[in-house]
Amino acid sequence: MSQFMFENRLSSLRNKFDILGVDAVWIIQPENRRYLSSFKAADGQLNESSGSLFITLEKAFLLTDSRYTIQAQEEAVGFEVITHKEGLTNALSHILDLLNARRLGFEGGYLIWDIYQKATEKTSQHSPPVELIPLAGLVEEMREIKEPEELEVLSRSAQLMGDVLARIIEELRPGLLERDVAWRIETLIREMDTDGVAFPPIVASGPNSALPHAIPTDRIIGEDEPIILDVGSKVDGYCSDMTRTIFLGSPPSYFREIYHIIREAQVSAIESIRPGMKTTEADSIARDIIKKAGFSDFFSHSLGHGIGLATHETPAVGPLKPVVLKEGMVFTIEPGIYIPGKGGVRLEEMVILEKDGARVLTTNKNFYSF
Amino acid sequence: MSQFMFENRLSSLRNKFDILGVDAVWIIQPENRRYLSSFKAADGQLNESSGSLFITLEKAFLLTDSRYTIQAQEEAVGFEVITHKEGLTNALSHILDLLNARRLGFEGGYLIWDIYQKATEKTSQHSPPVELIPLAGLVEEMREIKEPEELEVLSRSAQLMGDVLARIIEELRPGLLERDVAWRIETLIREMDTDGVAFPPIVASGPNSALPHAIPTDRIIGEDEPIILDVGSKVDGYCSDMTRTIFLGSPPSYFREIYHIIREAQVSAIESIRPGMKTTEADSIARDIIKKAGFSDFFSHSLGHGIGLATHETPAVGPLKPVVLKEGMVFTIEPGIYIPGKGGVRLEEMVILEKDGARVLTTNKNFYSF
Repeated sequence: MSQFMFENRLSSLRNKFDILGVDAVWIIQPENRRYLSSFKAADGQLNESSGSLFITLEKAFLLTDSRYTIQAQEEAVGFEVITHKEGLTNALSHILDLLNARRLGFEGGYLIWDIYQKATEKTSQHSPPVELIPLAGLVEEMREIKEPEELEVLSRSAQLMGDVLARIIEELRPGLLERDVAWRIETLIREMDTDGVAFPPIVASGPNSALPHAIPTDRIIGEDEPIILDVGSKVDGYCSDMTRTIFLGSPPSYFREIYHIIREAQVSAIESIRPGMKTTEADSIARDIIKKAGFSDFFSHSLGHGIGLATHETPAVGPLKPVVLKEGMVFTIEPGIYIPGKGGVRLEEMVILEKDGARVLTTNKNFYSF
Repeated sequence: MSQFMFENRLSSLRNKFDILGVDAVWIIQPENRRYLSSFKAADGQLNESSGSLFITLEKAFLLTDSRYTIQAQEEAVGFEVITHKEGLTNALSHILDLLNARRLGFEGGYLIWDIYQKATEKTSQHSPPVELIPLAGLVEEMREIKEPEELEVLSRSAQLMGDVLARIIEELRPGLLERDVAWRIETLIREMDTDGVAFPPIVASGPNSALPHAIPTDRIIGEDEPIILDVGSKVDGYCSDMTRTIFLGSPPSYFREIYHIIREAQVSAIESIRPGMKTTEADSIARDIIKKAGFSDFFSHSLGHGIGLATHETPAVGPLKPVVLKEGMVFTIEPGIYIPGKGGVRLEEMVILEKDGARVLTTNKNFYSF
């Protein structure tokens, strides 16, 4: 990714300061932090931040601790790296001096209550006092529209995943453990030039395929049963996410039926989605087909989700919250039908929304053979 | 782990309600949730919870969504599982009805600001209104003292890690990439009966060994240079954490010198730490030795940290915050010296604090050969 791109992102962010009523922002969410600064560090644990960005109209600071100083200096070009010794909140007074801000935006959807309380003490005691302003999805919204360089990486990420899936499907046979197949997927991903898996692979066979969020078990894959493979990897920080449902043996009629419904729901959605459409409308294209076929009670999740630096990001493409779909958005289309105790089918592609409609990024040629 | 143990934990928790001034608690932090309920699900992403516990003196609920319903019912014995359809905060009013509580404790060190705000709306509008009370490290403190069954698993976890390290050290040779060694470690861990790595392995060679938090790179491991291996796995949810520093070739005098200082600092700490001692005193046993040798500026982190369901948990064993060490605590002892541009040495063991002192859980026989 070019330095120019990161400068553009900072400009776009700063252009929003007026409307948001802030003169500085504090960014702590890992993907948002990477998006704005190119600082790649993850957070060690949920309560262990590897750094905060503080951005004003003129300045950009990255506050971190000594473990990350060198990495931050190398990666976060354009940011002044400040190393704190006694914790983030203790360093805040010094940062507030540097910022010279009166209204500091923070990530309400990410900052922990405790840290907010401590930060409030520091900001209110500061001279002049600084007000903390919650920002709702500010950077997340910028991340929704993918830039050409991001799209290029996402395409590579999606294609690589298709290659891995093709290989796994060739290798699949009765007698393997779900757990071992999941590990084989992870190994293939790691042996290609990736950052590893985007999420733990789902390998759900037989009745387990009726669980949308199945965790691979020690179950032995049998003959004549469905297997859902839901897998994703990260390439240069960008995630892929792809699902295929396989049947080892000769599929019974119930399976053929739900498979065809799901594939029809998916293809219809891919062919009909346009920029300007709402996410709820997009969801209903697929959901209506499933409903008409009498399976609406068995499609318990959303049609899809945005994907980029995070596997799940905005927009959610579901039945609840309408958001207008725009050109440049990348999201999944993944209808599913799950018959408890019996089995399920889910098919998932990643698409980029272009002027004329959705273009599939994942390999969509194989494995639609029932 | 026995059902009896989980019942005991709930009793201990409930016994604290009076002192805390609450009549119910809301637990969302994944390790705390598992500790109290044996519900093993992780959170998909930082902002994607797999469930909340709500515990009163008489009742215990696990609130989750449909992806986790079955897993929750199977694992969280003693909890009534409630599945929400439209998000955690929307389900809160219903939960408040069930709880019949007036003062609900929440995890201030974990709950996100946004969710707190939405929860406040629900609790204040409820009839009768419910007050939200922040709890500081309530369950984290319970987790500090390990029960016999936990200690047994932690020992297994530590021993397994020692076996993997021994194998890796045999295989190490110049010409290997740091990244490939890290992947080999991950593979060995996964091929044993574990839940995988506790954190991404650190393999830091040559000048990279001077970075306490080095990420494995494409650097080729050379002859005559130090390599820090800092690795951990999870067994039945419990973490191990262990560090060795190796030198391929004949160590120069600077390396021998800092190695001996670090080993002396570590052994002194292990031999001197007793129940009743403060964490800051424990830290200073090792730090004073390093200081006396003239390297205090090059030991930039704490001596150690508690370990259990999380790799890093309380107590922190460092120079800043004094906490009394108690029998039954399990923590790491890991002094280090890092000479920028040149190299570093860190040695790390896990110990259990017993009545008479610290007992090492990790294999401590090998690789102290300089």
